[in-house]
Amino acid sequence: MERLEEKTISSKEIFNGKIISVRVDDVELPNGKTSKREIVKHPGAVAVIAVTDDNKIILVEQYRKAMERTMVEIPAGKLEKGEDPKECAHRELEEETGYECKELEWLTSFYTSPGFADEIIHLYIAKGLSKKENAASLDEDEFVNLEEVTLEQALEYVKEKKIYDAKTAYAIQYLQLQEALSK
Amino acid sequence: MERLEEKTISSKEIFNGKIISVRVDDVELPNGKTSKREIVKHPGAVAVIAVTDDNKIILVEQYRKAMERTMVEIPAGKLEKGEDPKECAHRELEEETGYECKELEWLTSFYTSPGFADEIIHLYIAKGLSKKENAASLDEDEFVNLEEVTLEQALEYVKEKKIYDAKTAYAIQYLQLQEALSK
Repeated sequence: MERLEEKTISSKEIFNGKIISVRVDDVELPNGKTSKREIVKHPGAVAVIAVTDDNKIILVEQYRKAMERTMVEIPAGKLEKGEDPKECAHRELEEETGYECKELEWLTSFYTSPGFADEIIHLYIAKGLSKKENAASLDEDEFVNLEEVTLEQALEYVKEKKIYDAKTAYAIQYLQLQEALSK
Repeated sequence: MERLEEKTISSKEIFNGKIISVRVDDVELPNGKTSKREIVKHPGAVAVIAVTDDNKIILVEQYRKAMERTMVEIPAGKLEKGEDPKECAHRELEEETGYECKELEWLTSFYTSPGFADEIIHLYIAKGLSKKENAASLDEDEFVNLEEVTLEQALEYVKEKKIYDAKTAYAIQYLQLQEALSK
């Protein structure tokens, strides 16, 4: 087995924004040579597979500036500083969909883009949903359309590239797998 | 349905690196107010679920500077300028694992971090694998350890957080789903 670790020689902050920061590290490679690593730091996020009592999945359409298009995704949002991921999942579900849930179970976590970023997503499944009165509202720069769809409709959305992001693709496949395993 | 589009008022380049570039856009929101969007541009990538004739999955361990740890992932790599994703999948499979394949089928594509980046991953499955003589080698700043594991071992790696990224989590779940559907 080869040794793989890269040692930091120096680190330069390029940008410190509202959400992300960017730095370039000079690193010593395992063979003693040097290289540069461009790194995006992100606070991390949660995402929620929210399934209604009549077995519909709640989806959120929003504009994604990086792609200059709308995408349909499961509810998700960034962790606030020091926020517990499960609390964040409750909060984002309420803010983005107006729903609260009786059950919220952690499923898995994954880094989204390990080649250049440290964003991690903690994925939960929410059941026992009910509309909350006076639900907390979205951030003032967030605008979404809500949809409730069957698994079959969600799979159509994947084909049509309306659903087109990793966490939502994983979530839909998770529901497919549960359905296949229950047969 | 609410209108969701965000219009670009101005765009400022922050960083233009080897792999990523970063910009901040001032946008007009659907309600006429303004906000800022921090955006990472990325060339896009491919990833390959490579399954050997004895039904093992080929995995690549490498150091990920953004997380300061090694991770075990399916073979993957960035698109070169103008490169066809399928060609890129053949190339990365050969470079990272030394294997060539008889069959290479596109499965799906997804954006990894739509909230701040435009990285897209095109996912392929490779079968009919054989070791290639004089295989193309890794980039000079890439160091990897190869492993061939069963699906059960891969699921253990997910539990142990050795496998900890979205594309590989999706890939393992894809193989689980195929197994469940074949029963």
